[in-house]
Amino acid sequence: MGLIIMSSFDFSFSSKARRIKEPPISALMRWAVEEKDLISLAAGLVDYESLPAEESLTVLREILEDRKKAPLVLQYGTNEGLLALREHILSRWHRREGIGPSFSGLSTRNVVITTGSQQLLYLVAEALLDPGDIVIIGAPSYFVFMGALESAGAQTLSVPLDARGLRTDILAEKLEGLKKEGNLSRLKMIYVASYYQNPTGISLIPERRRELVDVVRRLRAEQPILILEDAAYRELRYEEEEAPSIKALDEGNKLVAMAGTFSKAFAPGIRTGYAFLPDPLVEPILNLKANHDFGSANINQHLVLSALESGLYDKHLKALRARYKEKRDAMLEALEKNLSDRAQWEVPGGGLYVWVSFPAEIETGPESLLFQKAKEKGMLYVPGEFAYGPDVEPLPKNHIRLSFGSPTTGEIREGVRRLSLALDEVPSKKKAGKKVAARRS
Amino acid sequence: MGLIIMSSFDFSFSSKARRIKEPPISALMRWAVEEKDLISLAAGLVDYESLPAEESLTVLREILEDRKKAPLVLQYGTNEGLLALREHILSRWHRREGIGPSFSGLSTRNVVITTGSQQLLYLVAEALLDPGDIVIIGAPSYFVFMGALESAGAQTLSVPLDARGLRTDILAEKLEGLKKEGNLSRLKMIYVASYYQNPTGISLIPERRRELVDVVRRLRAEQPILILEDAAYRELRYEEEEAPSIKALDEGNKLVAMAGTFSKAFAPGIRTGYAFLPDPLVEPILNLKANHDFGSANINQHLVLSALESGLYDKHLKALRARYKEKRDAMLEALEKNLSDRAQWEVPGGGLYVWVSFPAEIETGPESLLFQKAKEKGMLYVPGEFAYGPDVEPLPKNHIRLSFGSPTTGEIREGVRRLSLALDEVPSKKKAGKKVAARRS
Repeated sequence: MGLIIMSSFDFSFSSKARRIKEPPISALMRWAVEEKDLISLAAGLVDYESLPAEESLTVLREILEDRKKAPLVLQYGTNEGLLALREHILSRWHRREGIGPSFSGLSTRNVVITTGSQQLLYLVAEALLDPGDIVIIGAPSYFVFMGALESAGAQTLSVPLDARGLRTDILAEKLEGLKKEGNLSRLKMIYVASYYQNPTGISLIPERRRELVDVVRRLRAEQPILILEDAAYRELRYEEEEAPSIKALDEGNKLVAMAGTFSKAFAPGIRTGYAFLPDPLVEPILNLKANHDFGSANINQHLVLSALESGLYDKHLKALRARYKEKRDAMLEALEKNLSDRAQWEVPGGGLYVWVSFPAEIETGPESLLFQKAKEKGMLYVPGEFAYGPDVEPLPKNHIRLSFGSPTTGEIREGVRRLSLALDEVPSKKKAGKKVAARRS
Repeated sequence: MGLIIMSSFDFSFSSKARRIKEPPISALMRWAVEEKDLISLAAGLVDYESLPAEESLTVLREILEDRKKAPLVLQYGTNEGLLALREHILSRWHRREGIGPSFSGLSTRNVVITTGSQQLLYLVAEALLDPGDIVIIGAPSYFVFMGALESAGAQTLSVPLDARGLRTDILAEKLEGLKKEGNLSRLKMIYVASYYQNPTGISLIPERRRELVDVVRRLRAEQPILILEDAAYRELRYEEEEAPSIKALDEGNKLVAMAGTFSKAFAPGIRTGYAFLPDPLVEPILNLKANHDFGSANINQHLVLSALESGLYDKHLKALRARYKEKRDAMLEALEKNLSDRAQWEVPGGGLYVWVSFPAEIETGPESLLFQKAKEKGMLYVPGEFAYGPDVEPLPKNHIRLSFGSPTTGEIREGVRRLSLALDEVPSKKKAGKKVAARRS
């Protein structure tokens, strides 16, 4: 969890390596692995039982028994990824958004396959950021990406979220502020997880998506800023309505890079993500990726393509949504039952997380009494403080992230019960009024 | 092939992105894809027919039909990679080298699974190099790694190879030179492809391996330098004897990071590589990898492990060696038949490449007459000049790399014949004496 200690006999590391810390979550996860009886509502893993073993074997059998196809699949792929998969992803997305290439400005040239969406986030950071550059993120935000920003030496400028997502009014003020200070040229991108954000489960409402795109478009003549849209959780939707992606509002492919993935909706073990990139980003990202690995695993891309083409993917997704909805509801019910008078939370319309807020005096960090008590009772959560950029002061210490991804409904109920027992042992001044927000569109 | 052109409406890119060029090989490969009748002896691809489709399906069926195992395989893996695979790789290597952990200093903690060995090379460069740092490489050297060095802003210091590998005597002189100039502190690593090097097919002889380790060990008190051993082609051995890896000479795991891969020996489409790292490198490399992708594809690691455990891997490798030996011999025979009085080459004891040298006045670059004529005749090779660091002056322009990896024996023969026809049309002053070196141990 600390900085790397360099002894005098060590190699001398790059400034980048010296900036990197072990992600705080890693220490938690190591501990979780050692504890047998533990219920972890911390890990960002997906549901075990619904993982598509049969579907994967069906398509792999088809691929590997085809004497013409098998050698192509086991050979090196291309750096940018399988063309047929890139085509399929793009046309599927166009249909879904109800727009065409003449509006989106996207062709397969703008689509790149990556090792999960995480690799795309890293590549974009690498392509755009020098030490001292500024990136706007949400408060709270996805903590793994903050690690990448830290290693790039970038400064975060945090914009708070409310139940409708990133506060675009505050964003506009921050941009004004940067302009006045003469720091606008240091701002390189705005990172937004648009659907069921990790860690809060909150989505950005359509109106704010438009505001976001508009404000960046207006700034463009002065300072070209990239909106990096992380749509990793989009497929895990448990309500009817769905907002268009921010990318779909970016007429002509000028402002937004979008990262998507099949990890959540199909299988993380396959580690296949994708990106839609504005033209000027394509070459730098591909050149960087050529240096990283000159292409993600080819067989995995064929697996995903066959699952998409055969309809197995959609069938699986439908079942998966029903399953996660059940698990989400189990978690919400357990919270209601055990914590309704002592905490607040939002109802996530999708994704894998519920963000729970305690009264301000209840600290949740890894050294806190609540965390220790929860460990004693045999449950683990992610302290909310991990999800704030270093610019956020004072650091909010009274939130936690609960995940209903990998535990069973029984474990979810028991985990929340144990959390409530832990909370019983933490002195509190007052009770928090329960608040369940209106479901978001 | 040129630098990225930044228009005034582009995003502003990082200094790293601005240093990166498209790899020169990419343009060649794009062209190769467009030409239907072309015989490419250029691509670093593996043999199509021998790719293990049946073996892969066998182990995948076993894995995915196992109701307990399948979900674990399709779930996220760990950042460092599958423990059982890391154990298997390490104990296999210990047996092969005839040493144990008490000598090697290696435990599974030092073993990391990567997306091909390329990712490890990139991560090591990222962990150690700041702009202006120096890396010693061979002349010639693996050109994809030079791209990573270039993007890191590192300077190459090239040490020539002869038929026995890197000239360790010249290496010692270069180190002396750096010391005298006061530049030793800028030297971070020595990159050596130890077996059947890409592009020359040359291996480092055992005596020089020891010299290399000794010279770096002696320097250690003054400047800790990493030896980065690229052992990607080790398994593709067509002779009886095999040198111990450089890593096996590194008592106590102090000096050498070794990169290996299952791409060449099993299937590139699976993109699974591994590394043995000295203790101080483990944490920086893992922290960087956590930012890149927090773990390579899990199912692929299980596939490789099952292939290893079941014996299918070794069986496949035996057949593969026989096949490549046949293809290598076909290439050597064709060279002998068509070019014996006009070129020189070494007999590679393994790997996928033959390095062919023409008389000094015969240029081979992408703008050369030979290259154009070869294209006209319908064959493609890799110009040798791509394989030299920018510090090499004058740039040797009379070599080519021929690969017998993916073409059939028929295509190999016809490709070399076409090359010879192309050479017929290039004016030459004198004839080069044929030279086939003694086979290396």
